[in-house]
Amino acid sequence: MRPRVNIITLAVGNLEQSLAFYRDGLGLPTKGIVGTEFKGTESEPAGATVVFQLQGGLMLALYPRTELAKDANVPHTASSTSEFSLGYAVPSREAVDDLLRRAEAAGAVVTDNPHDRPWGIYSGYFQDVDGHLWEIIWNPKMQIRD
Amino acid sequence: MRPRVNIITLAVGNLEQSLAFYRDGLGLPTKGIVGTEFKGTESEPAGATVVFQLQGGLMLALYPRTELAKDANVPHTASSTSEFSLGYAVPSREAVDDLLRRAEAAGAVVTDNPHDRPWGIYSGYFQDVDGHLWEIIWNPKMQIRD
Repeated sequence: MRPRVNIITLAVGNLEQSLAFYRDGLGLPTKGIVGTEFKGTESEPAGATVVFQLQGGLMLALYPRTELAKDANVPHTASSTSEFSLGYAVPSREAVDDLLRRAEAAGAVVTDNPHDRPWGIYSGYFQDVDGHLWEIIWNPKMQIRD
Repeated sequence: MRPRVNIITLAVGNLEQSLAFYRDGLGLPTKGIVGTEFKGTESEPAGATVVFQLQGGLMLALYPRTELAKDANVPHTASSTSEFSLGYAVPSREAVDDLLRRAEAAGAVVTDNPHDRPWGIYSGYFQDVDGHLWEIIWNPKMQIRD
């Protein structure tokens, strides 16, 4: 296996609501909901999804929980907030604070207010409208140009 | 917010076991467990983690479930397999089949055998040793050089 990931797919409860959070609330560019021509059935997943093009060919996708469970052939279980997190690095402490405030205004829940952590970063966490964790990070050793 | 993700952190039950799966089983290069100097407490997260450097500055990290819950200040809930998936694109159908077999040999569970999907891809899913979903994808419209 090569060291790469091509797509991060987040399972969501409501595609339009999650799209609004990421596109309108956080400002990520996207064409919106695509793949609506694939209707699916009770056992076959539908294809409607939202894709955000990120760096290095990486894509972030939103896909209904029910459809991901069907597509991957796994049970549709109660959601869990401690499965994973996505880290987003910013160029300053202020940028951490600002983005957490912006996410909160867009409907996110800040679970951990920004503070210095023992490993030399300043960060805070929010949960998106589906409970997925994002850590917003300022790492003085990491060069981020915005 | 800029369209990027810097770190994908996967919550794991046992750092050494998950490291073995990704490094020895799938062949992803890494320095192994780092950050062991940050011991943590019952309420403060420890720092031990495994990092894989991916494309475009992206990192894949393994971090104990208990510590992620403490770090993000969220409850440590029962795990769920339908929260997200990571997509990995390969250059051919055969490469999909091969990687799923390799993952299975390394301890993964193939939840959905590879097949053609209505949206024009050939893919299958596995769960890593912690239940996290990976979709291995051949998309004839996507150029992948390996």
